[in-house]
Amino acid sequence: MTRPSGRAPQQLREISFTREFTRHAEGSVLVSFGDTRVICTASAEAGVPRFMRGQGRGWVTAEYGMLPRSTDSRMGREAARGKQGGRTVEIQRLIGRSLRAALDLDKLGENTITLDCDVIQADGGTRTASITGACVALVDAIASLQAKGLVKQNPLRAMVAAVSVGIVDGQPVLDLDYPEDSSADTDMNVIMADGGEFIEIQGTAEGATFSRTELDSMLALAESGINELITLQKAVLAQG
Amino acid sequence: MTRPSGRAPQQLREISFTREFTRHAEGSVLVSFGDTRVICTASAEAGVPRFMRGQGRGWVTAEYGMLPRSTDSRMGREAARGKQGGRTVEIQRLIGRSLRAALDLDKLGENTITLDCDVIQADGGTRTASITGACVALVDAIASLQAKGLVKQNPLRAMVAAVSVGIVDGQPVLDLDYPEDSSADTDMNVIMADGGEFIEIQGTAEGATFSRTELDSMLALAESGINELITLQKAVLAQG
Amino acid sequence: MTRPSGRAPQQLREISFTREFTRHAEGSVLVSFGDTRVICTASAEAGVPRFMRGQGRGWVTAEYGMLPRSTDSRMGREAARGKQGGRTVEIQRLIGRSLRAALDLDKLGENTITLDCDVIQADGGTRTASITGACVALVDAIASLQAKGLVKQNPLRAMVAAVSVGIVDGQPVLDLDYPEDSSADTDMNVIMADGGEFIEIQGTAEGATFSRTELDSMLALAESGINELITLQKAVLAQG
Amino acid sequence: MTRPSGRAPQQLREISFTREFTRHAEGSVLVSFGDTRVICTASAEAGVPRFMRGQGRGWVTAEYGMLPRSTDSRMGREAARGKQGGRTVEIQRLIGRSLRAALDLDKLGENTITLDCDVIQADGGTRTASITGACVALVDAIASLQAKGLVKQNPLRAMVAAVSVGIVDGQPVLDLDYPEDSSADTDMNVIMADGGEFIEIQGTAEGATFSRTELDSMLALAESGINELITLQKAVLAQG
Amino acid sequence: MTRPSGRAPQQLREISFTREFTRHAEGSVLVSFGDTRVICTASAEAGVPRFMRGQGRGWVTAEYGMLPRSTDSRMGREAARGKQGGRTVEIQRLIGRSLRAALDLDKLGENTITLDCDVIQADGGTRTASITGACVALVDAIASLQAKGLVKQNPLRAMVAAVSVGIVDGQPVLDLDYPEDSSADTDMNVIMADGGEFIEIQGTAEGATFSRTELDSMLALAESGINELITLQKAVLAQG
Amino acid sequence: MTRPSGRAPQQLREISFTREFTRHAEGSVLVSFGDTRVICTASAEAGVPRFMRGQGRGWVTAEYGMLPRSTDSRMGREAARGKQGGRTVEIQRLIGRSLRAALDLDKLGENTITLDCDVIQADGGTRTASITGACVALVDAIASLQAKGLVKQNPLRAMVAAVSVGIVDGQPVLDLDYPEDSSADTDMNVIMADGGEFIEIQGTAEGATFSRTELDSMLALAESGINELITLQKAVLAQG
Repeated sequence: MTRPSGRAPQQLREISFTREFTRHAEGSVLVSFGDTRVICTASAEAGVPRFMRGQGRGWVTAEYGMLPRSTDSRMGREAARGKQGGRTVEIQRLIGRSLRAALDLDKLGENTITLDCDVIQADGGTRTASITGACVALVDAIASLQAKGLVKQNPLRAMVAAVSVGIVDGQPVLDLDYPEDSSADTDMNVIMADGGEFIEIQGTAEGATFSRTELDSMLALAESGINELITLQKAVLAQG
Repeated sequence: MTRPSGRAPQQLREISFTREFTRHAEGSVLVSFGDTRVICTASAEAGVPRFMRGQGRGWVTAEYGMLPRSTDSRMGREAARGKQGGRTVEIQRLIGRSLRAALDLDKLGENTITLDCDVIQADGGTRTASITGACVALVDAIASLQAKGLVKQNPLRAMVAAVSVGIVDGQPVLDLDYPEDSSADTDMNVIMADGGEFIEIQGTAEGATFSRTELDSMLALAESGINELITLQKAVLAQG
Repeated sequence: MTRPSGRAPQQLREISFTREFTRHAEGSVLVSFGDTRVICTASAEAGVPRFMRGQGRGWVTAEYGMLPRSTDSRMGREAARGKQGGRTVEIQRLIGRSLRAALDLDKLGENTITLDCDVIQADGGTRTASITGACVALVDAIASLQAKGLVKQNPLRAMVAAVSVGIVDGQPVLDLDYPEDSSADTDMNVIMADGGEFIEIQGTAEGATFSRTELDSMLALAESGINELITLQKAVLAQG
Repeated sequence: MTRPSGRAPQQLREISFTREFTRHAEGSVLVSFGDTRVICTASAEAGVPRFMRGQGRGWVTAEYGMLPRSTDSRMGREAARGKQGGRTVEIQRLIGRSLRAALDLDKLGENTITLDCDVIQADGGTRTASITGACVALVDAIASLQAKGLVKQNPLRAMVAAVSVGIVDGQPVLDLDYPEDSSADTDMNVIMADGGEFIEIQGTAEGATFSRTELDSMLALAESGINELITLQKAVLAQG
Repeated sequence: MTRPSGRAPQQLREISFTREFTRHAEGSVLVSFGDTRVICTASAEAGVPRFMRGQGRGWVTAEYGMLPRSTDSRMGREAARGKQGGRTVEIQRLIGRSLRAALDLDKLGENTITLDCDVIQADGGTRTASITGACVALVDAIASLQAKGLVKQNPLRAMVAAVSVGIVDGQPVLDLDYPEDSSADTDMNVIMADGGEFIEIQGTAEGATFSRTELDSMLALAESGINELITLQKAVLAQG
Repeated sequence: MTRPSGRAPQQLREISFTREFTRHAEGSVLVSFGDTRVICTASAEAGVPRFMRGQGRGWVTAEYGMLPRSTDSRMGREAARGKQGGRTVEIQRLIGRSLRAALDLDKLGENTITLDCDVIQADGGTRTASITGACVALVDAIASLQAKGLVKQNPLRAMVAAVSVGIVDGQPVLDLDYPEDSSADTDMNVIMADGGEFIEIQGTAEGATFSRTELDSMLALAESGINELITLQKAVLAQG
């Protein structure tokens, strides 16, 4: 059985990270998972939301958006419709939770880092690309805070990356593109930390249900894909 | 190690279902998971949303809400604030997806069933109680549609139930109440169909990450808990 | 002329109050006027709205909602539509005004009591049931504040109850249910205090206008109905 | 006891109606109740709202607004805040109900008349001035529809007028201005049709409750005031 | 070539200003440019918006609205639709900028003046009438602030007026009314200060583009029209 | 007097256009005016808005947005705040009007082209860059419609470009960057068509007013800058 892209089941798309993609943000990364391209910026600000004040801990939050024509047919602009859709809200909450797990918030001090993930071209897997790219932007933002003396100890606990896995035509595959995503029986997003621990698992069967065996084979694919992604993140960060 | 409620790790709270709880809806169930109480109603209407018209298939959707004082301190009313919060949106999308998996939508015909899950008292696990109760209301609504001749063949594929599992103080436990939920390292919601297949898994580590071993023990607890819940659903439905 | 329910013109529906219906609120009452059922909770919080600060007086406010399937056909959820409808706003303002008249706000001190009236099943007269049930919840909330020492003197001036009256097929009747409400020429809501004084009168003729004679006979029915309701409120509160 | 304005208890303020105040509307009236000035326009359009289509009946609806500086201190503009306040909603629903009672909607045919009541200067009693002025505008709009042949039979059943009455310093008074309104124990708005029948009564006691005797004396004042107002409406309409 | 109104190309409509049009505002002017009539009020309040605090400087801002039936066919009320349209936002920003240029904000001290321009009848040129009328209201409001000792030195730098010019049927004309506005190839709004300096120019070609020669002839018309308007403003203000 | 960037007064920033920047849109251009970078996409859809149906003419509209961290400090996301700000509305209306002037809408047939201009990095002049880039995307979208046979005759009347001019420290300069924009006395945006005709002029003096002489010198700079821009547009389009 062949994947539409010709990839092997356990093969990631071509992954790239462009750091310093825009000039104003403390961290700015253009991440590509094949044709999926997301601008991830990390903005640091002094202070934390009201519910956290006075505890000496920091905060990480995320917002997500898609340019109206990032998709095959134009979507309405959420700012024009006056509200963010349910899918957007779900995704940005996921990104925020995932990246908070990357940091020791006590070491961040009372600073807030906002991760903006804006999809400029979508071909499946925008949320996993967002998380994986946002982690690189987050590391750059932390370096900037440390360079300015605003953060004393590095709060990074572990690199975080995410990938989708699914069952397509009965076969477990890694890193689904849009044609696979649309025809998958099961779609699962896995977010893990460097070292093999899980941060979040979200598996959904809208079409067919999935068995424990299928779950296990998807998890195995995800673990190996995330290892590769973290290696790539580290390589691009090593370029200084 | 003792749970705050004195339950064994693999022990559900006291579960009850009150059918025909209100009189207007095609299906109306008050479900209790211990002190968590949710009114689940299933409303059937002819027709489907625009994007599905003309395909001869039905639709199932869900809405979720909490009464302002269902919780320990009063929450603002979402209708008064003019928008549903992110958590609400996430939960109602999950309920809808889970119950769509219970049905063969082709057999439903062009009918829509809306599941309203309104929490009147919260003590942890409102989303899993909602799904488990809504499935009973859904079965009653289908019976009503069949009795009126609006649906020919029973579209039910399998009973669906949901339960939370988590790691609290290092120990995997089933069906977390609010005190456990607040102190859990990992919290996972598992939705399964009668027969042991998975519909959705959502596991989140905000505090500590979780290992594959912990994941496996949580899944085992969930499978056994869901078996019990489905037995209880069938018993209450058997009362006719 | 017979009423659809077989009641006599001056006869209330069966009335019941279930105190401590939910466990978190300072006062929580399930009130039934026949098939109309409303959860009334009273939530006490320290402090008052900005426009009242520093005067040493308390505040009472109300919010009203209907579960989507409390009615014969499902209504859209106000939280999902992003705004409360005109009828909702009108009713919750009425509940708030009526219950403020029950208290000496000076004796309440700078505390706010919020009355949430959520209709779980509607069969006419939801606003009068809400006011009558909320008064019982309010008394329980005050007792809770006094027990905690947060309020020194009992601020209750008088019990407050409400009932609808109307002209149906030319005949004045008390406590209209939905079939009567839909066919009434005139519908009036009367809110009174223990002792026979008026708090609010709202009489509306959308179909036919009403004469002074009809007004007088409706007021007489209301006065007697409210006497009965206040007797019932006191009886349930006497159960301690 | 003297009223702040020096008026006798049963004395209206100076009332005036300026017809054809603006040139586009089918009916346009500037009404003054003393210093309270409201522009009332009646706009006729073919067609009725969806819920009334195909019944051959017409519809009358109303909208109400206050210019931001119609009051002593500037209020926020509702269009800028993005929603109409509760008081606005309550008032415009009252105006609509009151004026629907003036017409035989069957004779109106499938036409909609929208009454816009915009307060340009407020000194108490804006809702009663709005109703009283809107009725004159409505008559002009009907004449315009008849002149164009769009309505065959005059749908007007009766002139409608409204006035406020209240108890101020223990004394019943007619047509309260702002200083009286702010200090009244009870405030009641009465809407009546030509001929002495009631359309709507709304009496509210936020401060002190009111007795049946006080209610009767307020109703007597209202009846006499409305007689005067209807005489004035007819006089200005007689000017052709 | 004749204009629909019979005016000469360089002729303004009949202009009038009624000061003290409503009684509450510090400045209140009804301005008419022919059949275009706008109520302009200037409301002074102590304090400035947050972003300006502590600088000792004042602020001038504007809001604009049209009564629903100020136009030939009724427009939806912006307060009811829950948002101000793009055209409204554009116009009120223009009014605010234009009138800020009239004042030395340092001399105003930390006071805010809000200019509300509410169109009661529209026949083209509502934004230019608004600016021209608001300047008169602003001068009255400043006099009121000076009389109360709240402002020491007169902050008025120059009178400000505005007029529209356009190319209609190939001919440059001054102060377009609605029939001309609808058929114009180019429409330009010019705002100038007493003394011949420009504050704002907005020229738009939706139909045909315009040449530099046409631009020059429109600017010449505007300069002469604004001279006339400022003479009229000064005359009405001289009446004390 | 030197400009902060070292440019001569009549010198544009470095301008570049990247066509086919994203793959889904009919036209997609990344435009740079120095450090200002905007993604301009042109999306073609069959059909026109309701108010234009049945006339056989097409429509061009625009939406504008800024990524939250396109600016020096992070701005709130408009989708999250639930409304587009006044500046956004003003700019997108300007882009739409300007590009409609580029086309013969009759030749476009009943098709709508939506221009999305999303700023990914801002350094002044985002609206003029947007218009200039959107025109290139528009030409590509038209070519796509022609290639598919959906449009018969080329509707392009003229290339359209835009540039800002201003008076900075008393000197007229072309194409202001952010440091100049913040300190300018006058800022003017000029939109012109190929051939030297004007489409829109918007000149604003918030600080100091400007004289006719200054206006003339700004217009001269704009004309020469736009000539250059149109030459560059044509060059990039000639690359096929």
